[in-house]
Amino acid sequence: MATRKAKSQWNGTLKEGNGIMSFANYEGPFTFASRFEEGEGTNPEELVGAALSGCFSMFLAALVSNEGITPTSIETSATVNLGDDNGPKITTIVLETKAVIPGIAQDKFDELVATSKANCPISRLYQGAEIKVEATLQA
Amino acid sequence: MATRKAKSQWNGTLKEGNGIMSFANYEGPFTFASRFEEGEGTNPEELVGAALSGCFSMFLAALVSNEGITPTSIETSATVNLGDDNGPKITTIVLETKAVIPGIAQDKFDELVATSKANCPISRLYQGAEIKVEATLQA
Repeated sequence: MATRKAKSQWNGTLKEGNGIMSFANYEGPFTFASRFEEGEGTNPEELVGAALSGCFSMFLAALVSNEGITPTSIETSATVNLGDDNGPKITTIVLETKAVIPGIAQDKFDELVATSKANCPISRLYQGAEIKVEATLQA
Repeated sequence: MATRKAKSQWNGTLKEGNGIMSFANYEGPFTFASRFEEGEGTNPEELVGAALSGCFSMFLAALVSNEGITPTSIETSATVNLGDDNGPKITTIVLETKAVIPGIAQDKFDELVATSKANCPISRLYQGAEIKVEATLQA
Protein backbone atom coordinates (compact mmCIF):
# COMPACT_ATOMS: atom_id res chain seq x y z
CA MET A 1 0.00 0.00 0.00
CA ALA A 2 2.83 2.41 0.88
CA THR A 3 6.56 2.20 1.60
CA ARG A 4 8.17 4.84 3.79
CA LYS A 5 11.82 5.64 4.44
CA ALA A 6 13.68 7.13 7.38
CA LYS A 7 17.22 6.95 8.68
CA SER A 8 19.56 7.62 11.54
CA GLN A 9 23.21 7.94 12.32
CA TRP A 10 25.04 7.57 15.63
CA ASN A 11 28.65 8.69 16.07
CA GLY A 12 30.78 7.68 19.04
CA THR A 13 30.06 5.98 22.33
CA LEU A 14 26.69 5.91 24.09
CA LYS A 15 27.40 8.65 26.60
CA GLU A 16 29.79 10.94 24.72
CA GLY A 17 28.41 10.32 21.24
CA ASN A 18 25.47 11.85 19.43
CA GLY A 19 22.99 10.92 16.77
CA ILE A 20 20.46 12.20 14.31
CA MET A 21 17.14 10.76 13.17
CA SER A 22 15.68 11.93 9.88
CA PHE A 23 12.81 11.50 7.44
CA ALA A 24 11.37 13.71 4.70
CA ASN A 25 12.25 17.29 5.71
CA TYR A 26 12.95 16.49 9.35
CA GLU A 27 16.29 16.05 11.09
CA GLY A 28 16.28 15.61 14.86
CA PRO A 29 19.49 15.45 16.87
CA PHE A 30 19.55 13.18 19.91
CA THR A 31 21.97 12.20 22.64
CA PHE A 32 22.10 10.08 25.78
CA ALA A 33 20.96 13.17 27.69
CA SER A 34 18.00 13.94 25.40
CA ARG A 35 16.85 10.35 25.66
CA PHE A 36 17.40 9.31 29.26
CA GLU A 37 17.73 12.68 30.99
CA GLU A 38 16.35 16.11 30.18
CA GLY A 39 19.02 17.25 27.73
CA GLU A 40 18.29 19.23 24.60
CA GLY A 41 17.27 17.31 21.50
CA THR A 42 14.69 14.69 20.65
CA ASN A 43 14.43 10.93 21.25
CA PRO A 44 12.71 7.95 19.62
CA GLU A 45 9.94 8.02 22.24
CA GLU A 46 8.68 11.43 21.06
CA LEU A 47 8.43 10.13 17.50
CA VAL A 48 6.67 6.99 18.69
CA GLY A 49 4.14 9.13 20.58
CA ALA A 50 3.53 11.47 17.65
CA ALA A 51 3.03 8.51 15.28
CA LEU A 52 0.44 6.80 17.49
CA SER A 53 -1.30 10.07 18.27
CA GLY A 54 -1.54 11.01 14.58
CA CYS A 55 -2.66 7.55 13.52
CA PHE A 56 -5.32 7.39 16.22
CA SER A 57 -6.75 10.85 15.40
CA MET A 58 -6.83 10.05 11.67
CA PHE A 59 -8.36 6.61 12.16
CA LEU A 60 -11.08 7.99 14.41
CA ALA A 61 -11.79 10.70 11.80
CA ALA A 62 -12.10 7.95 9.18
CA LEU A 63 -14.61 5.96 11.26
CA VAL A 64 -16.63 9.10 11.97
CA SER A 65 -16.57 9.96 8.25
CA ASN A 66 -17.92 6.47 7.50
CA GLU A 67 -20.95 7.33 9.64
CA GLY A 68 -21.67 10.26 7.32
CA ILE A 69 -20.55 12.75 9.97
CA THR A 70 -17.80 15.38 9.52
CA PRO A 71 -15.56 15.74 12.57
CA THR A 72 -14.66 19.36 13.27
CA SER A 73 -11.51 18.44 15.16
CA ILE A 74 -9.94 15.46 16.91
CA GLU A 75 -6.99 16.39 19.10
CA THR A 76 -4.90 13.70 20.78
CA SER A 77 -1.94 14.02 23.10
CA ALA A 78 0.34 11.07 23.75
CA THR A 79 2.42 10.41 26.86
CA VAL A 80 5.06 7.74 26.36
CA ASN A 81 6.56 6.15 29.46
CA LEU A 82 10.02 4.65 29.09
CA GLY A 83 10.69 2.38 32.04
CA ASP A 84 12.85 -0.62 32.75
CA ASP A 85 12.06 -4.32 32.49
CA ASN A 86 15.29 -6.27 31.97
CA GLY A 87 16.54 -3.21 30.06
CA PRO A 88 14.82 -0.09 28.78
CA LYS A 89 11.21 -0.71 27.75
CA ILE A 90 8.23 1.43 26.81
CA THR A 91 5.70 0.27 29.35
CA THR A 92 2.60 2.39 28.69
CA ILE A 93 1.40 5.00 26.23
CA VAL A 94 -1.51 7.17 27.31
CA LEU A 95 -3.62 8.95 24.69
CA GLU A 96 -5.92 11.80 25.68
CA THR A 97 -8.36 12.78 22.97
CA LYS A 98 -10.64 15.81 22.80
CA ALA A 99 -13.06 15.66 19.91
CA VAL A 100 -15.52 18.17 18.48
CA ILE A 101 -17.95 16.14 16.36
CA PRO A 102 -21.36 17.78 15.87
CA GLY A 103 -24.24 15.31 15.73
CA ILE A 104 -22.56 12.14 17.05
CA ALA A 105 -24.10 10.21 19.92
CA GLN A 106 -21.95 9.50 22.97
CA ASP A 107 -22.30 5.71 22.71
CA LYS A 108 -21.39 5.74 19.02
CA PHE A 109 -18.35 7.91 19.82
CA ASP A 110 -17.24 5.52 22.56
CA GLU A 111 -17.59 2.58 20.18
CA LEU A 112 -15.52 4.27 17.46
CA VAL A 113 -12.83 5.25 20.00
CA ALA A 114 -12.53 1.61 21.05
CA THR A 115 -12.31 0.48 17.43
CA SER A 116 -9.61 3.07 16.67
CA LYS A 117 -7.60 1.98 19.69
CA ALA A 118 -7.75 -1.64 18.54
CA ASN A 119 -7.36 -1.22 14.79
CA CYS A 120 -5.31 1.85 13.89
CA PRO A 121 -2.17 0.45 12.26
CA ILE A 122 0.20 2.06 14.76
CA SER A 123 -1.77 0.53 17.66
CA ARG A 124 -1.47 -2.81 15.90
CA LEU A 125 2.30 -2.29 15.60
CA TYR A 126 2.80 -1.36 19.28
CA GLN A 127 1.90 -4.74 20.73
CA GLY A 128 4.77 -4.48 23.22
CA ALA A 129 3.21 -1.75 25.38
CA GLU A 130 -0.08 -1.12 27.10
CA ILE A 131 -2.05 1.63 25.36
CA LYS A 132 -4.64 3.59 27.32
CA VAL A 133 -7.13 6.01 25.79
CA GLU A 134 -9.16 8.70 27.52
CA ALA A 135 -11.49 10.32 25.00
CA THR A 136 -13.86 13.22 25.59
CA LEU A 137 -16.58 14.52 23.31
CA GLN A 138 -16.70 18.28 23.55
CA ALA A 139 -19.60 20.60 22.80
CA MET B 1 12.97 6.57 33.54
CA ALA B 2 11.59 9.17 31.11
CA THR B 3 8.19 10.50 30.05
CA ARG B 4 7.79 11.99 26.59
CA LYS B 5 4.97 14.01 25.07
CA ALA B 6 3.66 14.43 21.54
CA LYS B 7 0.34 15.36 20.00
CA SER B 8 -1.76 15.49 16.89
CA GLN B 9 -4.86 17.10 15.53
CA TRP B 10 -7.11 16.03 12.68
CA ASN B 11 -9.71 18.36 11.17
CA GLY B 12 -12.48 17.18 8.85
CA THR B 13 -13.20 13.92 7.09
CA LEU B 14 -10.62 11.28 6.19
CA LYS B 15 -10.26 12.23 2.53
CA GLU B 16 -10.89 15.98 2.56
CA GLY B 17 -9.48 16.71 6.00
CA ASN B 18 -5.94 17.25 7.17
CA GLY B 19 -3.86 16.76 10.27
CA ILE B 20 -0.70 17.68 12.04
CA MET B 21 1.61 15.62 14.27
CA SER B 22 3.93 17.44 16.63
CA PHE B 23 6.55 16.98 19.34
CA ALA B 24 9.29 19.26 20.69
CA ASN B 25 10.17 21.65 17.86
CA TYR B 26 8.61 19.53 15.11
CA GLU B 27 5.27 19.97 13.37
CA GLY B 28 4.48 17.70 10.45
CA PRO B 29 1.34 18.13 8.36
CA PHE B 30 -0.29 14.98 6.98
CA THR B 31 -3.27 14.08 4.83
CA PHE B 32 -4.90 11.01 3.28
CA ALA B 33 -2.68 11.61 0.24
CA SER B 34 0.57 11.88 2.22
CA ARG B 35 -0.26 8.68 4.05
CA PHE B 36 -1.77 6.35 1.48
CA GLU B 37 -0.66 7.94 -1.77
CA GLU B 38 2.34 10.06 -2.68
CA GLY B 39 0.99 13.47 -1.62
CA GLU B 40 3.07 16.13 0.07
CA GLY B 41 3.46 15.89 3.84
CA THR B 42 4.49 13.24 6.30
CA ASN B 43 2.77 10.19 7.81
CA PRO B 44 3.03 8.12 10.99
CA GLU B 45 5.03 5.42 9.19
CA GLU B 46 7.98 7.78 8.59
CA LEU B 47 8.10 8.62 12.29
CA VAL B 48 7.86 4.93 13.20
CA GLY B 49 10.79 4.19 10.88
CA ALA B 50 12.93 7.05 12.22
CA ALA B 51 12.25 6.00 15.82
CA LEU B 52 13.28 2.36 15.26
CA SER B 53 16.27 3.36 13.16
CA GLY B 54 17.50 5.81 15.80
CA CYS B 55 16.92 3.42 18.66
CA PHE B 56 18.70 0.58 16.89
CA SER B 57 21.76 2.71 15.99
CA MET B 58 22.00 4.07 19.54
CA PHE B 59 21.53 0.65 21.16
CA LEU B 60 24.20 -0.90 18.97
CA ALA B 61 26.55 1.99 19.86
CA ALA B 62 25.86 1.30 23.54
CA LEU B 63 26.70 -2.40 23.20
CA VAL B 64 29.88 -1.60 21.27
CA SER B 65 30.81 0.99 23.95
CA ASN B 66 30.37 -1.73 26.60
CA GLU B 67 33.04 -3.75 24.81
CA GLY B 68 35.47 -0.86 25.34
CA ILE B 69 35.33 0.05 21.64
CA THR B 70 34.34 3.46 20.24
CA PRO B 71 32.14 3.24 17.15
CA THR B 72 33.06 5.83 14.53
CA SER B 73 29.60 5.77 12.94
CA ILE B 74 26.53 3.56 12.79
CA GLU B 75 24.14 4.52 10.03
CA THR B 76 20.76 2.80 9.70
CA SER B 77 18.04 3.27 7.14
CA ALA B 78 14.52 2.00 7.78
CA THR B 79 11.95 0.95 5.21
CA VAL B 80 8.43 0.66 6.63
CA ASN B 81 5.90 -1.32 4.63
CA LEU B 82 2.25 -0.46 5.19
CA GLY B 83 0.11 -3.24 3.79
CA ASP B 84 -3.32 -4.62 4.44
CA ASP B 85 -4.45 -7.44 6.68
CA ASN B 86 -8.09 -6.95 7.66
CA GLY B 87 -7.36 -3.21 7.49
CA PRO B 88 -4.13 -1.21 7.20
CA LYS B 89 -1.21 -2.89 8.92
CA ILE B 90 2.55 -2.39 9.07
CA THR B 91 3.74 -5.76 7.91
CA THR B 92 7.54 -5.48 7.83
CA ILE B 93 10.24 -2.99 8.72
CA VAL B 94 13.64 -3.48 7.12
CA LEU B 95 16.73 -1.93 8.70
CA GLU B 96 19.95 -1.59 6.74
CA THR B 97 22.93 -0.70 8.87
CA LYS B 98 26.40 0.37 7.78
CA ALA B 99 28.85 0.59 10.64
CA VAL B 100 32.41 1.85 10.92
CA ILE B 101 33.80 0.34 14.12
CA PRO B 102 37.61 0.06 14.19
CA GLY B 103 38.85 -3.01 16.04
CA ILE B 104 35.66 -5.05 16.33
CA ALA B 105 35.59 -8.68 15.17
CA GLN B 106 32.93 -9.70 12.66
CA ASP B 107 31.40 -12.35 14.92
CA LYS B 108 31.20 -9.96 17.86
CA PHE B 109 29.56 -7.38 15.59
CA ASP B 110 27.00 -9.92 14.37
CA GLU B 111 26.22 -10.89 17.95
CA LEU B 112 25.70 -7.26 19.03
CA VAL B 113 23.49 -6.58 15.99
CA ALA B 114 21.25 -9.52 16.96
CA THR B 115 21.07 -8.30 20.56
CA SER B 116 20.16 -4.77 19.42
CA LYS B 117 17.45 -6.10 17.17
CA ALA B 118 15.95 -8.09 20.03
CA ASN B 119 16.40 -5.65 22.91
CA CYS B 120 16.30 -2.04 21.74
CA PRO B 121 13.19 -0.59 23.36
CA ILE B 122 11.56 0.37 20.06
CA SER B 123 12.05 -3.18 18.73
CA ARG B 124 10.42 -4.43 21.91
CA LEU B 125 7.50 -2.05 21.31
CA TYR B 126 6.96 -3.07 17.66
CA GLN B 127 5.84 -6.63 18.34
CA GLY B 128 3.12 -6.33 15.68
CA ALA B 129 5.48 -6.32 12.69
CA GLU B 130 8.35 -8.41 11.40
CA ILE B 131 11.66 -6.56 11.74
CA LYS B 132 14.55 -7.53 9.47
CA VAL B 133 18.10 -6.26 9.87
CA GLU B 134 20.91 -6.31 7.32
CA ALA B 135 24.08 -5.02 8.93
CA THR B 136 27.44 -4.48 7.29
CA LEU B 137 30.76 -3.73 8.93
CA GLN B 138 32.69 -1.29 6.77
CA ALA B 139 36.42 -0.72 6.63
